[in-house]
Amino acid sequence: MLVIGERINTSRPSMAGPVREKNLGFLLTEARKQVECGADYLDVNTATMMEREEEYITWAITTIQQALDVAICIDSPNPRALEAGLQAVEGRPILNSISMEAKRIETILPLVREHRPKVIALCMDDTGMPVTVDDRMYHASRLVELLLGAGLAMDDIYIDPLLLPIGTDAKSAMATLDAVQQIMQTHPGVHTVCGLSNISFGLPLRRLINQNFLTVAMTKGLDAAVLDPCDRRLMSNLITSKMILGQDDFCMGYINAHRRQRLVL
Amino acid sequence: MLVIGERINTSRPSMAGPVREKNLGFLLTEARKQVECGADYLDVNTATMMEREEEYITWAITTIQQALDVAICIDSPNPRALEAGLQAVEGRPILNSISMEAKRIETILPLVREHRPKVIALCMDDTGMPVTVDDRMYHASRLVELLLGAGLAMDDIYIDPLLLPIGTDAKSAMATLDAVQQIMQTHPGVHTVCGLSNISFGLPLRRLINQNFLTVAMTKGLDAAVLDPCDRRLMSNLITSKMILGQDDFCMGYINAHRRQRLVL
Repeated sequence: MLVIGERINTSRPSMAGPVREKNLGFLLTEARKQVECGADYLDVNTATMMEREEEYITWAITTIQQALDVAICIDSPNPRALEAGLQAVEGRPILNSISMEAKRIETILPLVREHRPKVIALCMDDTGMPVTVDDRMYHASRLVELLLGAGLAMDDIYIDPLLLPIGTDAKSAMATLDAVQQIMQTHPGVHTVCGLSNISFGLPLRRLINQNFLTVAMTKGLDAAVLDPCDRRLMSNLITSKMILGQDDFCMGYINAHRRQRLVL
Repeated sequence: MLVIGERINTSRPSMAGPVREKNLGFLLTEARKQVECGADYLDVNTATMMEREEEYITWAITTIQQALDVAICIDSPNPRALEAGLQAVEGRPILNSISMEAKRIETILPLVREHRPKVIALCMDDTGMPVTVDDRMYHASRLVELLLGAGLAMDDIYIDPLLLPIGTDAKSAMATLDAVQQIMQTHPGVHTVCGLSNISFGLPLRRLINQNFLTVAMTKGLDAAVLDPCDRRLMSNLITSKMILGQDDFCMGYINAHRRQRLVL
């Protein structure tokens, strides 16, 4: 299970001010604690900086990687910011994200060809958000074809079936979850990824919903997630669910996490 | 999701003494709080009372049903105690349990024919506990055949694929979970049930494992469980997972549970 830490995002109120001031201590504290909590990649999103996004995403990535040995997930709707991030980053990043929208293919696919990052690919096109499992399967197949054609390996592709708030449609989570299962079966070797927190938008006790959704989604085959690794219960559930799902030989991951006091009830 | 409350069991140290003394207040407090926490059935097990088991199971069932309108799951390895329970009980109980062991079929099947309870049926025979998914499927098919032949409907049958401690075999939980999924697909209309707490035997933070196992198992199709309904996080996960799995129209079960302060983080 690949954990992409979501906390370095200037749309979070607590993050916007310090990043605007290029507060290095604040940024590194956020980065370091996510790594300590088990993040494999750190998502970096400075999209709210608008016309200065390229400057800020470059600063954030460079600052983090000068201090920490951690991989980066370059996150922006803006192709110029993605390009700036690709030029600044060390090692092989994840690009977040491409989709089947014509404008995004046109601007982002050349970056994929040139820099060969791993890529998060959203199941949507210019007609809007997917509704059914079939919508998602249709987009997933086209995205896999597009990205293999651009020179990526199956293992480089993270399909995001898109998760809508369950409060607006009580059946929508199952459409996403069944899509996860079918995508993993139809395209062996591909990965699936979700941004967890969208599921709970508008409902009370959001963390309870996010925590249970992660366990359900892992059961359906999800093998990557953008989440808050500093939510200790969420990470405890992740470690425990891996064990239950037979992905933790001799339960050593669980037992070691307990010894290191990483598990909470 | 059918919740069978597990707390009235004289193998629990805190329960043995009060039941031995026929402490009516203690028994009814345990019964009432499980119903308030969401139990659909109360499991009643007085097997540790040995030669006086029949007397005690009769007393416990009668006492509970005189005070509370709740259905009973009559739980014993002893056919005479099961029979005493069947004679004492009001309404239609669940009998816990039959298996493919020759002695159990011989002694318990006549009770099923005569009293027509719902039945929990364990996937094991005289060769011992099941190991693989195929072991469980083999037993499940024979149990379904046996119980339909005894006059039960599919909806009366709760197949227990048996859950071994994950600490003794890290792959065993998946064998149980895959069996749940296959049993539900192979025998449409049948139910599956697990005693949750066995999964975590011997490992630290048992409740964390039980909680995640429940969510994983519900994702695989499990629709009944013997559990502690007074574990508020476990019940919160159950309510939340039902919503995520599309079994809670308009999320009203979740929202109402939150309003009644039944959900905890």
